[in-house]
Amino acid sequence: MSHADPLVVFTPSGKRGRFAVGTPLLTAARTLGVDIDSVCGGRAICGRCQVLVAEGEFAKHGVRSGAGSLSPWSATEERYASRQPLAPGRRLSCQARIEADVVVDVPSMSQVHRQIVRKAAEAHDIELYPLVKLHYVEVREPDMHDPSGDLQRLEEALAREWQLANLECDLAVLQQLQAILRKGQWTVTVAVHDASRIIAVWPGFHDQAFGLAIDVGSTTIAAHLCDLASGEVVASAGRMNPQIRFGEDLMSRVSYSMMNPGGAAQMTAAARQAISELAAEVAASAGIAPALILEATVVGNPIMHHLLLGIDPVELGGAPFALAIDRAVTVTAAEIGVALHPNARVYALPCIAGHVGADAAGMLLAERPDLTDEITLLVDVGTNAEIVLGNRQRLLACSSPTGPAFEGAQISCGQRAAPGAIERVRIDRDTLEPRFRIIGSDLWSDDPDFGAASAPTGVTGICGSGIIEVIAELFLAGVISRDGVIDGALAARSPRVVASGRTFSYVLHSGAQTLSITQNDVRAIQLAKAALLAGIRLLMDRLGVEQVDRIRLAGAFGSHIDVKYAAVLGMLPDCDLSRVTSAGNAAGTGARIALLDSRSRATIEALVHRVEKIETAIEPQFQAHFVDAMAIPHRTAEYPQLRKVVDLPAPQPVATSAQGRGRRGRRPASPHPV
Amino acid sequence: MSHADPLVVFTPSGKRGRFAVGTPLLTAARTLGVDIDSVCGGRAICGRCQVLVAEGEFAKHGVRSGAGSLSPWSATEERYASRQPLAPGRRLSCQARIEADVVVDVPSMSQVHRQIVRKAAEAHDIELYPLVKLHYVEVREPDMHDPSGDLQRLEEALAREWQLANLECDLAVLQQLQAILRKGQWTVTVAVHDASRIIAVWPGFHDQAFGLAIDVGSTTIAAHLCDLASGEVVASAGRMNPQIRFGEDLMSRVSYSMMNPGGAAQMTAAARQAISELAAEVAASAGIAPALILEATVVGNPIMHHLLLGIDPVELGGAPFALAIDRAVTVTAAEIGVALHPNARVYALPCIAGHVGADAAGMLLAERPDLTDEITLLVDVGTNAEIVLGNRQRLLACSSPTGPAFEGAQISCGQRAAPGAIERVRIDRDTLEPRFRIIGSDLWSDDPDFGAASAPTGVTGICGSGIIEVIAELFLAGVISRDGVIDGALAARSPRVVASGRTFSYVLHSGAQTLSITQNDVRAIQLAKAALLAGIRLLMDRLGVEQVDRIRLAGAFGSHIDVKYAAVLGMLPDCDLSRVTSAGNAAGTGARIALLDSRSRATIEALVHRVEKIETAIEPQFQAHFVDAMAIPHRTAEYPQLRKVVDLPAPQPVATSAQGRGRRGRRPASPHPV
Repeated sequence: MSHADPLVVFTPSGKRGRFAVGTPLLTAARTLGVDIDSVCGGRAICGRCQVLVAEGEFAKHGVRSGAGSLSPWSATEERYASRQPLAPGRRLSCQARIEADVVVDVPSMSQVHRQIVRKAAEAHDIELYPLVKLHYVEVREPDMHDPSGDLQRLEEALAREWQLANLECDLAVLQQLQAILRKGQWTVTVAVHDASRIIAVWPGFHDQAFGLAIDVGSTTIAAHLCDLASGEVVASAGRMNPQIRFGEDLMSRVSYSMMNPGGAAQMTAAARQAISELAAEVAASAGIAPALILEATVVGNPIMHHLLLGIDPVELGGAPFALAIDRAVTVTAAEIGVALHPNARVYALPCIAGHVGADAAGMLLAERPDLTDEITLLVDVGTNAEIVLGNRQRLLACSSPTGPAFEGAQISCGQRAAPGAIERVRIDRDTLEPRFRIIGSDLWSDDPDFGAASAPTGVTGICGSGIIEVIAELFLAGVISRDGVIDGALAARSPRVVASGRTFSYVLHSGAQTLSITQNDVRAIQLAKAALLAGIRLLMDRLGVEQVDRIRLAGAFGSHIDVKYAAVLGMLPDCDLSRVTSAGNAAGTGARIALLDSRSRATIEALVHRVEKIETAIEPQFQAHFVDAMAIPHRTAEYPQLRKVVDLPAPQPVATSAQGRGRRGRRPASPHPV
Repeated sequence: MSHADPLVVFTPSGKRGRFAVGTPLLTAARTLGVDIDSVCGGRAICGRCQVLVAEGEFAKHGVRSGAGSLSPWSATEERYASRQPLAPGRRLSCQARIEADVVVDVPSMSQVHRQIVRKAAEAHDIELYPLVKLHYVEVREPDMHDPSGDLQRLEEALAREWQLANLECDLAVLQQLQAILRKGQWTVTVAVHDASRIIAVWPGFHDQAFGLAIDVGSTTIAAHLCDLASGEVVASAGRMNPQIRFGEDLMSRVSYSMMNPGGAAQMTAAARQAISELAAEVAASAGIAPALILEATVVGNPIMHHLLLGIDPVELGGAPFALAIDRAVTVTAAEIGVALHPNARVYALPCIAGHVGADAAGMLLAERPDLTDEITLLVDVGTNAEIVLGNRQRLLACSSPTGPAFEGAQISCGQRAAPGAIERVRIDRDTLEPRFRIIGSDLWSDDPDFGAASAPTGVTGICGSGIIEVIAELFLAGVISRDGVIDGALAARSPRVVASGRTFSYVLHSGAQTLSITQNDVRAIQLAKAALLAGIRLLMDRLGVEQVDRIRLAGAFGSHIDVKYAAVLGMLPDCDLSRVTSAGNAAGTGARIALLDSRSRATIEALVHRVEKIETAIEPQFQAHFVDAMAIPHRTAEYPQLRKVVDLPAPQPVATSAQGRGRRGRRPASPHPV
């Protein structure tokens, strides 16, 4: 190029250069390293390289740009536009040639590495760097004078047109290649994984490639189908984890495996089958074939992770809780029998430790506490709470055996979150009368229309968030003492407080079904929250901090609880409540990030390596913290920030009872239930 | 080390160095890069590191060496020797420590990269560089204070003890790893492929690893089981290729695939099944489990190669004869459904061109014509002859459509080589009376005891070498003219020459069965040998040579024919007969070399790339050569070297008949039968 050549400026990158008249814009963009997408390689087929000419005088660039800056609208573009819509002013950069100075805007949809904006204010955007890319090529026909394999000529085309060298090729592709090349009359589109391996091939032009982010929870499995070109989630679905029939919680599944030869294999098959069905379901809602899913990522706790990969989780059921592998694993869909494209690579995020799984790694990736100086506490509450604490300097992680009480299990009238379940509770401080709301209705129970509104389901039980609220409200109303005892003396004041053997209960609802909070229910929640807080305190000790700057609650639980009540119960350390927020399904988001931004895989692998792993089962301090945390909200902690917004009873001494020890002794077979 | 330290000299390498007193010999050897084997890593378990102390004064080395040069026989060695024999004077180099100057001999069996001596005089020895190596390690137990995956601790041990870093691990290994580590009480032996991937694992110490060299012919499949530690063939077996039920020759198998949906898959399954059975058979004769076969190599013609890999060979059935892939392919045994260790890597040698397969590549590797200045002709005669010509400077290859006549097919009384088949024939120049020998008997038919000796089978037909001999003898006796006509005038002189329609036959044998050589039989052999010689001549033209220095005949055919008669018929160009030799099963040998010396894979891949591929079907010269080669031995060539040893009739003009054209026109459906 010379100084007489036209100047081309690309926005928003600002990259600029002079090019000879007649140079296609796409060529100029490539030369300058401007990020413009293309599948067809400049043949005006894919339309991914669309750009917009900026009109006017651009003093900043010293350029006057306009319609005349480029070659006129060509017959090729006309043909493209006749097949699919092309917005006004848009040109195909592979066809439009430079005639004079020009400012060219590359819209987001034409960028390979576009930003995917996440809704939540605290979330970082995802930059699109998919591992799988589609490349359309024209392949030289075989020539007897120069015999070579069809694959070699395909690779020659990929090297020539896409600078892809030294490619491997999956056997299944090789097996179909000859027929597909001929069907496409020597034009094909190939899917290349990580610029190193041909994993799929279609005759002619093809521009659909999808990825699946999979979140294997012990209760539910969720899958998000993403378009790898746009990064958008095009369909999501979830279903119960069918492993539930082998055991409700993780430990019972491990037991099932121990007691039944082939039990682990049964659970493996069940999870894989469920994922295949989910893939079919999301593919159907997006109107695509599951075989167009060319990449997948998986998060899950260590037991789910191991079972999915076909590894017996028995070692995770007892000390020393040894993982089979603690780094990321990549397998093919065919290897693990999941019905995506058989050559789709499935990337399982790394597990952090025996109780801190790839789901916690996903949470880390979604939240990136390592990017801030603020001391951040991440909590994913399940039957095991996974806890991460730290900031840019250090990150610590542990898990804590909360058990399933927060999910409504082990509670006399508890149930899973479903229509009919009580989710919000308020108790009058004077009358001790309750009012509540159920899932599926916006009305409070003291609303005259509540009966009609709740009729479809009735009031069926109390879900996790409802239990937390009712116990916190009972505490705030003085019905429950700091050490968790339902005050029987109040039976005189309210018919709601009733004797039940040697202890008392609080009757929350009397209808078709009577829903009461028993002393045992309170104990179950105390045990669970004490375990959670003890784990958090342990990490705070290790990090040497007395308080945290922000708390992010991940998972369904985190999305549904009212953080105020969680704080009142003492589930969490004291914190400005405005800094306690839901992180949504952070593990699933992490899977989606690993799917869409391949660079993030190295990030999370390094991050997981950096995390200091704390094993609560062998930390003497855990037991002391546990005992202190049995009190509501805590035996000694003052909760000054919480007191600013909630009228907490004044701190008073609480007996350091044997309750805590009871917790640990409950399950002799499993010293550390997971 | 200082100058005062003892001097250690290892033989036969001559490597030497000074080491501190007390240094184990194995450590000294490793430091010097002396090739000493070890699986157990110096724990006196495997016994692979045995050495012998040389006794005496070694003036050359300036060393006096003897029993006292090393630490005394240790309890550990005693323990080893109590379990398995240790030859007198042998020490375990991992246990014996240096005390004074010493000369240590490393016997061949203690070397990793030992030479495997090939019997044939012309053959290069094989140097042992197996891809799969066994490593015994002690793995750190899991520790809750420092949680890590079992795989990471295994890899840590492999890095520490064997300097193996960045290993991948097959999923099937990961799935078994935890149970095996515990079964072996934290000691395991792993099989590492190419210093980069863990493919198998056993509890405790394990020292057996085998490889399988597979030769997939269209008629037979053969397999050779090799001990990867010694390089020795420990068992071999062969069986008919079960694909024969889909078509006797290659072209009919391709037709079967074209005419029957799923036909290719049926043939693929049949070949894989046969290989699995062969693997089981050789494993059983060696007394090992097939799962101990951790590596395999495959040779075969392009159609066999493609079918085995699950690639429909339809494109190889017609011009332009496009291969799916022309480079080497590595797959797992599981991927192609062959019952070895499922993670065994199966390496298919590269095909050279559409008709010149991985079997020719194997032949190249076994013969290495590129290492000599002599112009070497390699011929593998099957239904298609694969021909390679050249030397250090250039290599050319083609295939020629000889058809199955040389194997006894298309011959009126032809049969496969089997007991009862005539394999040697002599015809009296005066009486025209024949005498012959059959397979299974050493007696000639004019021996008084022949009848008794041949009684078990009788005289059943003529095999390939017999047909060549009888036609050559008939030619030398003047019964057949240079242009291949059976001289009816001789009917007057001998009752053996009889009219048969408009042509004549020669009665070779009258017994329970009459075996005659018909005019059509002579034509079939003329067509086959003309095709072979035309292919050879074409390569000679291209290389610009008038004669070749040596000829190597590969395959069963090459082992059985008498080269003199092949020369008389004009199957081969003129050559000093002492330089025409059998190369044995060169393709199978090539597979074995690729199995045992992994470095040879790069060699053959580069060599195949270098070979100039000639497609006879599109070479105008081929037709001219074909016509000239119809004459016996040739229309114009003088065969001066042959004349020195055989009384050939004087050259006389032969009509350039239309016979050649007839050959090419015979199969309109397949312009180039393979």
